[in-house]
Amino acid sequence: MNSSSLSALERAAGHQQRFDVSFAKYFAELAGDLNGAQLGRFPPRCLELLAQLSLRGGKRIRIALLYEAAGLVTRDEVPGLAEAALSLELLHSHALILDDIMDDSPMRRGGPSTYYACREDLPNHPQAALGLAMMAGDLAGFLALRVLFRAELPADRKQAMIDVQLGVTTDTVIGQALDLERDVNSSADEELLETVCEYKTSRYTILAPLRLGLLAAGQDLAPHEQSLRRYARLAGLSGQMRDDYLDLFGDPAVTGKPEGADLRAGRHTYLTRELLALTSDDDHDTVKSALGNPDCTPRTIDRIRDIAHRHNVHTRLQKAIDHHAQAAAAEAGSWHRHWNDEAVTLFEQLPLWGARRKR
Amino acid sequence: MNSSSLSALERAAGHQQRFDVSFAKYFAELAGDLNGAQLGRFPPRCLELLAQLSLRGGKRIRIALLYEAAGLVTRDEVPGLAEAALSLELLHSHALILDDIMDDSPMRRGGPSTYYACREDLPNHPQAALGLAMMAGDLAGFLALRVLFRAELPADRKQAMIDVQLGVTTDTVIGQALDLERDVNSSADEELLETVCEYKTSRYTILAPLRLGLLAAGQDLAPHEQSLRRYARLAGLSGQMRDDYLDLFGDPAVTGKPEGADLRAGRHTYLTRELLALTSDDDHDTVKSALGNPDCTPRTIDRIRDIAHRHNVHTRLQKAIDHHAQAAAAEAGSWHRHWNDEAVTLFEQLPLWGARRKR
Repeated sequence: MNSSSLSALERAAGHQQRFDVSFAKYFAELAGDLNGAQLGRFPPRCLELLAQLSLRGGKRIRIALLYEAAGLVTRDEVPGLAEAALSLELLHSHALILDDIMDDSPMRRGGPSTYYACREDLPNHPQAALGLAMMAGDLAGFLALRVLFRAELPADRKQAMIDVQLGVTTDTVIGQALDLERDVNSSADEELLETVCEYKTSRYTILAPLRLGLLAAGQDLAPHEQSLRRYARLAGLSGQMRDDYLDLFGDPAVTGKPEGADLRAGRHTYLTRELLALTSDDDHDTVKSALGNPDCTPRTIDRIRDIAHRHNVHTRLQKAIDHHAQAAAAEAGSWHRHWNDEAVTLFEQLPLWGARRKR
Repeated sequence: MNSSSLSALERAAGHQQRFDVSFAKYFAELAGDLNGAQLGRFPPRCLELLAQLSLRGGKRIRIALLYEAAGLVTRDEVPGLAEAALSLELLHSHALILDDIMDDSPMRRGGPSTYYACREDLPNHPQAALGLAMMAGDLAGFLALRVLFRAELPADRKQAMIDVQLGVTTDTVIGQALDLERDVNSSADEELLETVCEYKTSRYTILAPLRLGLLAAGQDLAPHEQSLRRYARLAGLSGQMRDDYLDLFGDPAVTGKPEGADLRAGRHTYLTRELLALTSDDDHDTVKSALGNPDCTPRTIDRIRDIAHRHNVHTRLQKAIDHHAQAAAAEAGSWHRHWNDEAVTLFEQLPLWGARRKR
């Protein structure tokens, strides 16, 4: 790692640490700022659940992207970035809470998912537990828009930024619906996998923070739209593939998710696709019978990992991850012409770093 | 019914009919206007489910309130009302879809609830069915804000109107969380019932359309805030009590909901509260054992209706409904001083009409 990439990563870590402080402050003030949030037991619990999930970290990749996107244009302080950061992470909490309900996932970010925390609260009231988790998710989505809407910004700039976030909300619904379709269908072709990734990951995790940061810094997006979209698509694909990879080859203590969760859920991911495509006979049957079997044991997951290693699934998938990350980095490389070198370097480094991340 | 109230109701019906046409048009254009809405099978189905529920009517009470609220101030055409109307009903669809998931309700508006429609679509994939229904609800909530956000209005006016709707979204989450708490607790006092009604019904069904209509018409709300709140609280209470009343005394063919749904769900409503408070011995036991029993038969519901009649639950509850409706009408009566008589008359008549409505 050379010195410029080190400083880029350090800068990213700085954004993330500062954000964590401001996110904690946001939640500390929210109860006082939200009508009725202290009534009874369930409303405060709803806020608490949202705060717990939100503050339990995650990679905060969007935060680094957002601040560095503004840094592409200016080194001055940029009004609206703090609110955009809160908006991005609240919308992310919204997506995670809903995802975990839909997937019936017990764990998230190394702790109980919001849904399972509610079920633990209300063991004899499964419908109320579902309802409370849904309300925590619902609240997060609307707060994400509220915080941006209340930013003190020129009207046209704010309008453009809210438009980005509204686009993310509807894109995510479409991506999530496609994702459900992928789970239900017995097969999923490469195109569907890419489209789900585009709607559920690239636009939301990469393109939105980029656009928000640039807009806040006063940049007209139109001349850069195509390049931003290419970068987001490539980095998003690489990141999605790495997520899929970590489902089998990651360390649960580091990822915060149980291993083989995608396999057990029968999800059609880049990993399961490779596993099915590259195996035959007994190996193929082992993979197939584990897919979608929620009771699949850790031993079976171990066996599938062995099968994957024998068929070089890990190296093939990692090669694709690296390939897309390098293409994303090359796309960002073209930005040196018009934007700040230091920030551009970060956008070059991020996908390469993401391609090898452990969580 | 005198001639002024007849014309007020005719005017309300006119608003509602015109709205239904524009709502159908909105959905017809939505697929083309929403990125990716035509991808695969699930995204179009998600839109279709939302359109079906939204266009299957309901009372459209918010629409009459909205247009007449603008009519309090001006008889001219008011920009932004059409978008506010769409926003109100989309947010209502959002609430209904989520409610029916949380309550596991099979019916809504005389047809299947969105959740049950999804379950019928995907009989072998209960989690995907839940997910698809959640996505339809999620989409509705964000579209409700999008449509208002895209209205062509002066920035400050739009800001104030979006603020109203954002307030509704968070109020509704609080109200819904309190409502879940009410379901879980074995008892619910009068104060909790009133607070749930305030957050879940009054602000959302009555106060929000009033505020939106007045804001769109250029009215400064500050001098009227207290009176508007009082009106909304009283009319909301009356309306909520009438809803509770119809659960046992309504005609399912007219209400579009199965009779005794609140009873079966063990919900603490104004009706169940009266039933428990006014009965003793065997009658009390019958009511108590039916409450929260999902398998409670139509015969038991009939028996409870008889018990209710014997103890005058229906007349007592109707008296409270009428009392609050009359108080709301009196509050609106004070508006003749500063606002258009014709529209004020409608606000006087609506609660009285609502107090006797059949659905």
